[in-house]
Amino acid sequence: MKRLTGIGASEGVSIGKVLLFVEGNIVIPQEIDANSTIEGELAKLENGLKKSKTQLIAIREKVKEKMGEDKAAIFDGHIMLLEDEDLIEEVEAKITGDKLPAARALREGLDEYCEMISQLDDPYLRERAADLQDIGKRWLKNLLEIKINDFSNLEPNTIVVTKDLTPSDTAQLDLENCVGFITEIGGKTAHSAIMARSLELPAVVGVKGVLGEVKDGELVIMDGETGEIFLEPTEKLVEEYKIKQEKIRVEKEELKKLIHEEAVTLDGRKVDIWGNIGSPNDVDAVIESGATGIGLYRTEFLFMNSDHFPTEEEQYQAYRVVAEKMQGKPVTIRTMDIGGDKELPYLDLPKEMNPFLGYRAIRISLENKDMFKTQLRAILRASQYGQIKIMYPMISSINEIRKANAILEECKKELDEIGKIYDRNIKVGIMVETPSTAIVAYKFAKEVDFFSIGTNDLTQYFLAVDRGNELVSSLYNSFNPAVLEAIQKVIDAAHHAGISVSMCGEFAGDKRATRLLLGMGLDSFSMSASSGLTVKKIIRNSNYVDAQKYRDLILKQDTPEDVIEKLK
Amino acid sequence: MKRLTGIGASEGVSIGKVLLFVEGNIVIPQEIDANSTIEGELAKLENGLKKSKTQLIAIREKVKEKMGEDKAAIFDGHIMLLEDEDLIEEVEAKITGDKLPAARALREGLDEYCEMISQLDDPYLRERAADLQDIGKRWLKNLLEIKINDFSNLEPNTIVVTKDLTPSDTAQLDLENCVGFITEIGGKTAHSAIMARSLELPAVVGVKGVLGEVKDGELVIMDGETGEIFLEPTEKLVEEYKIKQEKIRVEKEELKKLIHEEAVTLDGRKVDIWGNIGSPNDVDAVIESGATGIGLYRTEFLFMNSDHFPTEEEQYQAYRVVAEKMQGKPVTIRTMDIGGDKELPYLDLPKEMNPFLGYRAIRISLENKDMFKTQLRAILRASQYGQIKIMYPMISSINEIRKANAILEECKKELDEIGKIYDRNIKVGIMVETPSTAIVAYKFAKEVDFFSIGTNDLTQYFLAVDRGNELVSSLYNSFNPAVLEAIQKVIDAAHHAGISVSMCGEFAGDKRATRLLLGMGLDSFSMSASSGLTVKKIIRNSNYVDAQKYRDLILKQDTPEDVIEKLK
Repeated sequence: MKRLTGIGASEGVSIGKVLLFVEGNIVIPQEIDANSTIEGELAKLENGLKKSKTQLIAIREKVKEKMGEDKAAIFDGHIMLLEDEDLIEEVEAKITGDKLPAARALREGLDEYCEMISQLDDPYLRERAADLQDIGKRWLKNLLEIKINDFSNLEPNTIVVTKDLTPSDTAQLDLENCVGFITEIGGKTAHSAIMARSLELPAVVGVKGVLGEVKDGELVIMDGETGEIFLEPTEKLVEEYKIKQEKIRVEKEELKKLIHEEAVTLDGRKVDIWGNIGSPNDVDAVIESGATGIGLYRTEFLFMNSDHFPTEEEQYQAYRVVAEKMQGKPVTIRTMDIGGDKELPYLDLPKEMNPFLGYRAIRISLENKDMFKTQLRAILRASQYGQIKIMYPMISSINEIRKANAILEECKKELDEIGKIYDRNIKVGIMVETPSTAIVAYKFAKEVDFFSIGTNDLTQYFLAVDRGNELVSSLYNSFNPAVLEAIQKVIDAAHHAGISVSMCGEFAGDKRATRLLLGMGLDSFSMSASSGLTVKKIIRNSNYVDAQKYRDLILKQDTPEDVIEKLK
Repeated sequence: MKRLTGIGASEGVSIGKVLLFVEGNIVIPQEIDANSTIEGELAKLENGLKKSKTQLIAIREKVKEKMGEDKAAIFDGHIMLLEDEDLIEEVEAKITGDKLPAARALREGLDEYCEMISQLDDPYLRERAADLQDIGKRWLKNLLEIKINDFSNLEPNTIVVTKDLTPSDTAQLDLENCVGFITEIGGKTAHSAIMARSLELPAVVGVKGVLGEVKDGELVIMDGETGEIFLEPTEKLVEEYKIKQEKIRVEKEELKKLIHEEAVTLDGRKVDIWGNIGSPNDVDAVIESGATGIGLYRTEFLFMNSDHFPTEEEQYQAYRVVAEKMQGKPVTIRTMDIGGDKELPYLDLPKEMNPFLGYRAIRISLENKDMFKTQLRAILRASQYGQIKIMYPMISSINEIRKANAILEECKKELDEIGKIYDRNIKVGIMVETPSTAIVAYKFAKEVDFFSIGTNDLTQYFLAVDRGNELVSSLYNSFNPAVLEAIQKVIDAAHHAGISVSMCGEFAGDKRATRLLLGMGLDSFSMSASSGLTVKKIIRNSNYVDAQKYRDLILKQDTPEDVIEKLK
């Protein structure tokens, strides 16, 4: 038996047979074949491009269906790369000018292009170079009529082992038969890892040397929580893991029984478990998880997945579907949060030195009044079909709320003038995600109907740490006592002003934080559908009075390490 | 009479004669002259380069002498650009390969290079392209033996009017005779504006169309505070402005009388006025301004102006000079704050998406222990020559203080082992500039001897606004009620723990904030030497009890606008 370890990227235990996937070589012709012509080569290039685009669009659809709109959006960038005119012209010139065969022209064109942009010492472009190599390989294979690796028809009980899994590979995985994947490279925040968690498929990534150690067809055990892999496991270990698997299965079954139960503590404190969504397609999963509302509807995906500003009608239809499906339960629509790391192809935003400290979210909306009014009118019109609330993102100053509300009033007046119906008592709240809003939350609470704490950005700004930056990401920790103090302050300020407060950042779905947040007095926990039942179970097993004492103990700690120690 | 307005970039009123400086054309030969050879052209290129370098080094020295090390550091980047091997090789290839004359080769090489980097959609490189054009012009002129604009010999009472003033132009200004400058482009934060403030030279920038309106030799009035310019002023107006000038002069004289007075309120509350410095050269100005200590010694300039990590001996000498010159008065040495927007040529830091939320200051020091220990040992050794305090920058978590202090203890032990003397009671404090430190300042106060509030970063992080980003800089405002609440919290926490608290960000020298900060209980105000007396005067005319009431009123306000309204 042999034990390897990597990074546990998606929880769950699997026992299965290895499908070892080592990519074959792509042989590129050096000269145009005697049977072909320049026109013929240009046609091959074009066909390869078209085929690749069609495949990617199909993959995008599959992902949208299986994993929701926000995951599908990853492919928009990929599809756009296939439309890069500079690259296409360059490659065509190599065919017509240098008389190279299409494959060689494409290979050289891709390499030069990637070489150029990866030298630029610009992290945005460097990342694009990696994507381009991935997409380029698909194009090349299609052009050469090489079969693309197909993970869509697997033997039962397969664990895929490969160097790296691209998002498109992950999207195609035959989920009936695949029980997990192991990769040699990659990290916890790689797209494929994020997708695995969303699919609840066990995954271990970054297992150095695994390709040389593992044999095709052999039995392996993998643990997606600890990152452990066992090759040639003893029978005893297989038995142990079968028991572990069964335990996990039973726990999941137990959880499912809670779907229609309330999130109420042993001593009667009731809270809400809500879902976060990126599009109307995500609502069903939220309803199935037993969530009693939508705490965060990220409308930016509607904008990102369009080639134009979504019209009032397009937005109205989307918001209305969600409101109707939720049948009168709360639906919190956040106005679009573009900027930072999210771009719109049709909105030309200048490159910024520190985009997270830049032009984003409400800052963009307030300066693009027509766009903002279109969204607000669409939300208002949809509000007659359910219980819609409006939420402004990235509020850092009270003026911004007042300005946004003044625009909202204009929209109401316009709808009144043309006799449109809307919820005249629509509630308006804000994301609390900048330190300025958190520290004087008691002032902000007088201006709004509710707060929703966005812990990802709040943590990032409080600690001055970009969590996507590997050099400092170890400092990023929502359990930092300063972040916890800020959260408590916001909750207290809300309750003092008589308004409710929810949390929609990742912390809300972190089971290590549930009792603490309960003790802090949080009213609503909003998270991705898959975590809802686990959190509900913890709440149902907790005592509110005890949770408050526990909270007092935690807030006294000085360092994140002390906090995590006490949480145990 | 005609009135134009621009941006007041440096305070003061001037009445003077215009020197209109419109740059002449540089005529570039298309082919190598019959008398010259390829070798001759290469030599011209080389000579132009050497001459330019020599000039820039001389300018750097002049600036260092007149304005201090931190302003001089601007030129290091310029000098480095002249050493760009890619560019030089490219230009030489145009001479030897394409047989172009040196000037044309350089012009084309520069244009292509700038074109390339400015297309990259990377703000760092775009800025570098502008610098390169500036430096390239000097190189071209030197190569063609065209005289470089010389502002070092002016007629008495001259106001220089030009399209733009480069930092090197500003450095050469004949300060005996120049009474101000006006430019058509540029903003308040341009390097030339910063230098003007440091020279106390009135400046108005960004006056659109001024070059077409103003005539060489004519009389103009300029007001560097309001940004107003009067062409062909009436005699009456000239008289008015003469009176205004006289008033300002008298005020300055009055201020000078305060040099040896204490910063004490009418009712007896005494505070400290300290100076900020970037190198030992800046100490004299601090002493002359009557400051009773150094609240911030930015040691990163020692690192930035070196081509290697400064040795322990080099650092020791610098710190010792400052300690000795200050004769026992406090000298607060901040360990180096590299990263963010500050780079070291010899430390290869990866490019980051959001450098202000990245790897900088103490985060770098803690991971580069040898470098950090070298600095700490140097500081300790210098501590026997005065009252040195150590200050850690960018602290966001208590662990960082503990880790840094553990390293400091190691250094003390090492010095003990070799019998070196140091202040065994050296005080250790931190910059409070991240929101996490501010919000739980009461926890941090137990770990250190003093706080120093860095308002620039604190404001930036609280509001999630990069103040250098024009798209959002209007949101950057230290008068934002959230920032003020944070400052008050930090001061209260310090006093509750019995430690002192200073402020060394720009807010400390903002005369609009003086009474407020006094009322908040700030112990020490640390700023650039030129603002010290103004602040001292305000304090001497204030009543502490009244200032506290005033503070209460200000802290009740909801928006930055409300605050500024109440300040009036």
